[in-house]
Amino acid sequence: MELGLYTFGDVGADPATGRRVGPAERLRNLVEEIVLADQAGLDVFGLGEHHRPDYAVSAPAVALAAAATQTKRILLTSAVTVLSSDDPIRVFQQFATLDNLSEGRAEIMAGRGSFIESFPLFGYDLDDYDTLFAEKLQLLMQLNESEQVSWPGGKHTPPITDRGVYPRPYQEKLPIWIAVGGTPQSLARAGVLNLPLALAIIGGEPARFAPLFDLYRQAAQRAGHDPATLKTSINVHGFVADTTQEAADTFYAPQADVMNRIGRERG
Amino acid sequence: MELGLYTFGDVGADPATGRRVGPAERLRNLVEEIVLADQAGLDVFGLGEHHRPDYAVSAPAVALAAAATQTKRILLTSAVTVLSSDDPIRVFQQFATLDNLSEGRAEIMAGRGSFIESFPLFGYDLDDYDTLFAEKLQLLMQLNESEQVSWPGGKHTPPITDRGVYPRPYQEKLPIWIAVGGTPQSLARAGVLNLPLALAIIGGEPARFAPLFDLYRQAAQRAGHDPATLKTSINVHGFVADTTQEAADTFYAPQADVMNRIGRERG
Repeated sequence: MELGLYTFGDVGADPATGRRVGPAERLRNLVEEIVLADQAGLDVFGLGEHHRPDYAVSAPAVALAAAATQTKRILLTSAVTVLSSDDPIRVFQQFATLDNLSEGRAEIMAGRGSFIESFPLFGYDLDDYDTLFAEKLQLLMQLNESEQVSWPGGKHTPPITDRGVYPRPYQEKLPIWIAVGGTPQSLARAGVLNLPLALAIIGGEPARFAPLFDLYRQAAQRAGHDPATLKTSINVHGFVADTTQEAADTFYAPQADVMNRIGRERG
Repeated sequence: MELGLYTFGDVGADPATGRRVGPAERLRNLVEEIVLADQAGLDVFGLGEHHRPDYAVSAPAVALAAAATQTKRILLTSAVTVLSSDDPIRVFQQFATLDNLSEGRAEIMAGRGSFIESFPLFGYDLDDYDTLFAEKLQLLMQLNESEQVSWPGGKHTPPITDRGVYPRPYQEKLPIWIAVGGTPQSLARAGVLNLPLALAIIGGEPARFAPLFDLYRQAAQRAGHDPATLKTSINVHGFVADTTQEAADTFYAPQADVMNRIGRERG
């Protein structure tokens, strides 16, 4: 089992103290947190892409790179890259650069996105929510397979005729995870593509989500893959303190603030 | 006067020794070079975006970020960002992230590109070489002006209706330079837009290029700007050793290798 941390780089006022933390302080603290997590022996650190005033991370590979040569063992991943509204070639190049800087510790966690700000910002239509992801994921996987790429193009991507994409990663291939929120079609797609699966659990008992992993492994098996080789992960909210009560007391205010703010937006 | 270094992160075989340097070694060495340049008191370090097997840097902001919190004073810039084939919003976000990580030391040097690999790779038409740059530069400058952006869209960019772009830079605005190869229209554009100018001089006596800066300052003046406030730079090939002879002996083989290789491509 591997244990890690992920964050979106929250900025704004601390609900307990009112003190404001801006993006520079938050991003520089993040680098120290990743270095400390590496020293403490955690296995992975993830940064999630958002396009909102309350999160400092819109370019995960840039923020992760700041810790790349200051760490030795910890994996550096997006959590997630909103692949639907990005360019798979740029994503591949940025994480291949991170992979070289870290000598093989970069991973991409690709998702359709739980927030939707990136769609109007980058000129995409939410009606294409799923086809954007499917097409761009296919191109991203192909970039990972070979240095020279030919791509027929599609509804959302231009064609490519035998071009090289650089730098190549340090690893033979960049690990590409599929991050899902629980949509059965997304789970099945990850299984069919034989890609590792990260499930985000925002609330509820983790055990309740076991059937989703069964669905994923069944889809993989039906597509001819060996489910025993598939890696899985759960991404959950959490807070650690010396006692449960202390954790609850410390965590409640900021967590309630976030959940209420986002709950109000989503209605 | 400020003095700095820029590189594209050359990889491949050393023509003197035959030893191959791959992208991981090159990029990790780069980070050490930037840290050393900072300690030695150089003012700026630049990385140029390319999409070729002989250069390791295709994502300058990611590579520069690796040195951001390990340096104190040195400016970190692209040299150049091929803005024509990139998304101005992503470029802004990546360099704003770098600016926060470095507490205000990020700059963007935007150019049309001297190499053309990025156009077919990202689905652009070389016939749009100049209109791509002009339109994307305008959007990039607008992103720099205000947090909320509305943009009518154009031939090469989708419209944006009152969206926020994050993170905001640490500096009030990101310094945006225009990098040119000597095209009079490009020089005049930089002057009209009141943007600092970087001139690439691949060969020839620097003094011979002075009239280009006059043209630039005249264009600025005609557009109502004060030419005395405009910053300028020259980007030249160079090599430093204890004696001129030693510099020539050491530098000749690798430089001839590069110039002959690229000369053959361009015919």
